[in-house]
Amino acid sequence: MEQWLKDDERLDYLLAENLRIIQSPSVFSFSLDAVLLSRFVQIPKSKGHIVDLCSGNGVIPLFLSARTKAKITGVELQPRLHDMATRSIAYNKLEHQIEMKLGDVKDVPKTLGIEKYDAVTCNPPYFLAHELSEKNTSEHYAIARHEIHLTLEQAVEASSRLLKQGGKAAFVHRPGRLLDIVTAMRANRLEPKRIQFVYPKRGKEANTLLIEAIKDGKPDLKILPPLYVYEDNNEYTPEVRALLYGDEN
Amino acid sequence: MEQWLKDDERLDYLLAENLRIIQSPSVFSFSLDAVLLSRFVQIPKSKGHIVDLCSGNGVIPLFLSARTKAKITGVELQPRLHDMATRSIAYNKLEHQIEMKLGDVKDVPKTLGIEKYDAVTCNPPYFLAHELSEKNTSEHYAIARHEIHLTLEQAVEASSRLLKQGGKAAFVHRPGRLLDIVTAMRANRLEPKRIQFVYPKRGKEANTLLIEAIKDGKPDLKILPPLYVYEDNNEYTPEVRALLYGDEN
Repeated sequence: MEQWLKDDERLDYLLAENLRIIQSPSVFSFSLDAVLLSRFVQIPKSKGHIVDLCSGNGVIPLFLSARTKAKITGVELQPRLHDMATRSIAYNKLEHQIEMKLGDVKDVPKTLGIEKYDAVTCNPPYFLAHELSEKNTSEHYAIARHEIHLTLEQAVEASSRLLKQGGKAAFVHRPGRLLDIVTAMRANRLEPKRIQFVYPKRGKEANTLLIEAIKDGKPDLKILPPLYVYEDNNEYTPEVRALLYGDEN
Repeated sequence: MEQWLKDDERLDYLLAENLRIIQSPSVFSFSLDAVLLSRFVQIPKSKGHIVDLCSGNGVIPLFLSARTKAKITGVELQPRLHDMATRSIAYNKLEHQIEMKLGDVKDVPKTLGIEKYDAVTCNPPYFLAHELSEKNTSEHYAIARHEIHLTLEQAVEASSRLLKQGGKAAFVHRPGRLLDIVTAMRANRLEPKRIQFVYPKRGKEANTLLIEAIKDGKPDLKILPPLYVYEDNNEYTPEVRALLYGDEN
């Protein structure tokens, strides 16, 4: 086991998929939002090629690998997170399906190729750079969470350039950025088709937005049924338990 | 009673508010959407002036009159519906609070005045003109439901011109037009602040959108908890029963 791990890293379970993932409390751990996006996006089942932008420790490629035989390329800017993702892929023996690229999302259409991909997923930094608070923030988390090296508009533009006509771009973000994200999508030939709002509990405002657009799609937006994360007693709802732990639990 | 009614009109109850409203199956009957909008919009309680565009038989002004002492002006293009609304207001003895104007929404900023109002509500035609089907459609319903005389963009523009800075514009529409409505709002100094999606039942896609914007407001969009209309057994949910029949029921 130890040969796979560095520093304070752990080998955590992705229980629902019988996979393992390397995480570190001081560097990066995946969030529920990444899991929600992995389940939300519509992807080809048996062939094709998917790109995951802002891949972090590779959680979305790992989850997607359980849903599809398509090739998956993850892109991550930070060498430390890229390295964790690469080792997790090797540990799970998924090198034949998933490849991690170290690089800047803004350069990715040039390096990976234009209009070649069937789907792009992205769990981008949520917060504006000026919202960054100095305290308790490692550089790794700061870059993953704040628009320091990548704005939402840049992430949307890169997604669109990667996608074939009819390809799907799926993002997870905060509901407060809904208008920015749909504006950026429409400005980049991405027509929003499916939105799902995630609510922490019944009776609360939504705190997460899942959105999928189709490149050069026709306007026809659907608002999916809401997803609740917690029951009133603070336990996960059955839907979220199934995502995290598998359907049996 | 008969002196109030014409042709096939009925005097229906607005039960939750102890009001009566004149309707006609062949000309116009109000929809649940109008009731939802009347409850959703944030309005001044004791003073101010509200405008309701596309008022139909006056259902929104009547509902609002139970929530506020503000003056309410309703605008309706069709003489037949304007006449029904005027008689309903007289029947309920609300002439001191509600005034109905016969006219085109596009002309209203000129006739009612610019930047004078605290809130504008609008339940506009939902369907594009080319979606009009000839069969089973009276001219009254066709004009109320289809963008024959008024587009969404024109309704949003008129709302913005009527509103003071800080005034609120509240619309009800189909979720498929979400992107059009937020685009039109931002193009007319209206910043969307509150959205609520209405679902016919749990597990179904949303079929109604409630949205409120503030003139020259700062970006800060909230997605309110979802509203369900029917229980699984096809009875109204308690929330909708309270809106339609009052809280006692």
